[in-house]
Amino acid sequence: MNTEERLRALRGVMEERNVEASLILQPDDLFYLSGFKAIIYSRPFAYLVESDGLSMALPSLEEEHVRKEARADRLQIYHETPERIDRGSSFLAALDALVSPLRPSCRLGVEKGYLPLELGRFLEEKGFVLVDVGRDIALARTVKEPKEIEAITLSGDLVSYALRASLERARPGMTEMELDLAGTSALFARVARDFPSATVDHFVMSPSGRERSAMQHVFSSTRALQLGDGVIHSRQVGLNGYRAECERTFFVGSADPFQRRCFAVMAEAQAAAVAAVRPGVRAGDVDGAARRVIDGAGFGEAFDHRTGHGIGVTSHEEPSLRFDNDVVLKEGMALSIEPGFYLRGRGGFRHSDTVIVTAGGARQVTSYPKDLESLVIG
Amino acid sequence: MNTEERLRALRGVMEERNVEASLILQPDDLFYLSGFKAIIYSRPFAYLVESDGLSMALPSLEEEHVRKEARADRLQIYHETPERIDRGSSFLAALDALVSPLRPSCRLGVEKGYLPLELGRFLEEKGFVLVDVGRDIALARTVKEPKEIEAITLSGDLVSYALRASLERARPGMTEMELDLAGTSALFARVARDFPSATVDHFVMSPSGRERSAMQHVFSSTRALQLGDGVIHSRQVGLNGYRAECERTFFVGSADPFQRRCFAVMAEAQAAAVAAVRPGVRAGDVDGAARRVIDGAGFGEAFDHRTGHGIGVTSHEEPSLRFDNDVVLKEGMALSIEPGFYLRGRGGFRHSDTVIVTAGGARQVTSYPKDLESLVIG
Repeated sequence: MNTEERLRALRGVMEERNVEASLILQPDDLFYLSGFKAIIYSRPFAYLVESDGLSMALPSLEEEHVRKEARADRLQIYHETPERIDRGSSFLAALDALVSPLRPSCRLGVEKGYLPLELGRFLEEKGFVLVDVGRDIALARTVKEPKEIEAITLSGDLVSYALRASLERARPGMTEMELDLAGTSALFARVARDFPSATVDHFVMSPSGRERSAMQHVFSSTRALQLGDGVIHSRQVGLNGYRAECERTFFVGSADPFQRRCFAVMAEAQAAAVAAVRPGVRAGDVDGAARRVIDGAGFGEAFDHRTGHGIGVTSHEEPSLRFDNDVVLKEGMALSIEPGFYLRGRGGFRHSDTVIVTAGGARQVTSYPKDLESLVIG
Repeated sequence: MNTEERLRALRGVMEERNVEASLILQPDDLFYLSGFKAIIYSRPFAYLVESDGLSMALPSLEEEHVRKEARADRLQIYHETPERIDRGSSFLAALDALVSPLRPSCRLGVEKGYLPLELGRFLEEKGFVLVDVGRDIALARTVKEPKEIEAITLSGDLVSYALRASLERARPGMTEMELDLAGTSALFARVARDFPSATVDHFVMSPSGRERSAMQHVFSSTRALQLGDGVIHSRQVGLNGYRAECERTFFVGSADPFQRRCFAVMAEAQAAAVAAVRPGVRAGDVDGAARRVIDGAGFGEAFDHRTGHGIGVTSHEEPSLRFDNDVVLKEGMALSIEPGFYLRGRGGFRHSDTVIVTAGGARQVTSYPKDLESLVIG
């Protein structure tokens, strides 16, 4: 990925705002800017971006990994063994060493929505004036570069593959978790075969039946699928750190007239939202396009979440496709489009696809049929 | 789980420190204290614990889920749709409503190591005096109650089952990811069959060969196992939010004399650390027990991490089994014991087991043979 271009953008923001250096701690921002992704962050990292330098505070365990993946001129390593205590044994000391070459009263960029209070205090007591750059990085992350789009497109292909593998095996009597497992096994087998040294993030849930599908966020259970059930099968896959999402509402064996009506409204709303995506449109207006359809059908009150969100390094990122978001869509943004509505005791209805904003509109990177006939299964 | 007892302990700390209320935002602490676990935290939550009340700020999407799982007398719900904007549409407004009944200049407990700077500022501008309770909660979490120990024991059984499934299928020519997949598929199939409505957290990696096994934290790749390889197969499983960890170093087909010697030192160090675990011992002394063995064999410099850590709601929690940690072990703590050393170009050597501190010492909840004969495979 082109971290050089990303750093240039951040440095532009810093210059505008008279910020001498930025201290990045949030793991996703740190991956975005440095190219380095750790397996676990219980031992913290910090990345210092200056106009003419890059340095990182890191645990000794990750030294080799950081040297291989991150752009950094100077490493401040902290250790956790008695033999090396004289080389520094705490993150705070490494952080201190990282910022000590800076002018003590300079303006320091930080992620105010992430930086923990105790570290903020520590930096202020050293005399730094803290300025937020977190929001700027979040907005910079919205527009994906070609290699990021390639990665999201590949994840889109993989998540569709896993979803297909689950849906092709769906049948009455199978549990939600067995349904998930079918696609997950197929996914991991394909990744193990085709993608050398890839990392995989993975999420799946399949709330089924009238009660559970009406809950937006639940883990899969051992509830067995029954004839007549509506099911929302939901998946995310992130290959090498870039995610895509695909969800389909399907019915086991048959759908009754009320389910068919709700399904049609949801599918029309999703199509309207996808059609509304193009450069220059407000994020909130994509939400409005879906909302008009669902409101018009009388289910507005049950459509109780935004229409979607940016996706990429994380599951949920800017731009939020929320009614009050004035961020304007640009070519290269990656979005999940997933309006839905949830009727207590009668079921929930939602499709989700991941799209890339193109000059002419939206290119969908996930694929599975969305029509009712294809989605009455088993 | 006994959230009542946990809240009582926190309230005791609050009383001691003259803290009127505590505002909990860290997802794991929030699960520990309220019983509620969300699928995703991109929409934030806050839990306010007062001496005589419990309230939560939450996104509307999670209302039903929160009502079912969390202890809370009062909910401040924020919405993301235009129809409900008059009921509040931002987390900050909900947080404001949550704390507004408190005396404006009172002492408010917060997690200073987690609370983001911008929220800390917001609370201070309202007049609250912020006092850290995060460290107290981290320490309270170290001693597990019987139901937590049951949960960790069950996860110990499952992680051992998955590890066994992988190791039984290991053979030359299989890739690291295929090795992982074998156990992961077995794990998910068993969970889908045996554990109604369970949630599963899951991690696995298998760095193989002289280069890769010497890197402590790498993702599995499509590198194929070769005769003579050392492999560190590493797994964590968390059933219903409680984790256990199991790792074995094994050899493909045969181990040469140098590998045998290193393996023996590592196995002796791990046994020494397990034997050192009992109530009243310093966390740092468990590290010392392993370190003496590895130092004595001349590999001290290559043992560059702590001996282990607490485990439970998260992968890595207190007490850290680090040389300079004075926390004293107590009955009911759950620990991973995993000394290891890493020789560039010659391989890495580490076993890990999860143990519960008992009156008499340590009870291991993970199981797989640790001797060399059992670990020359394929």
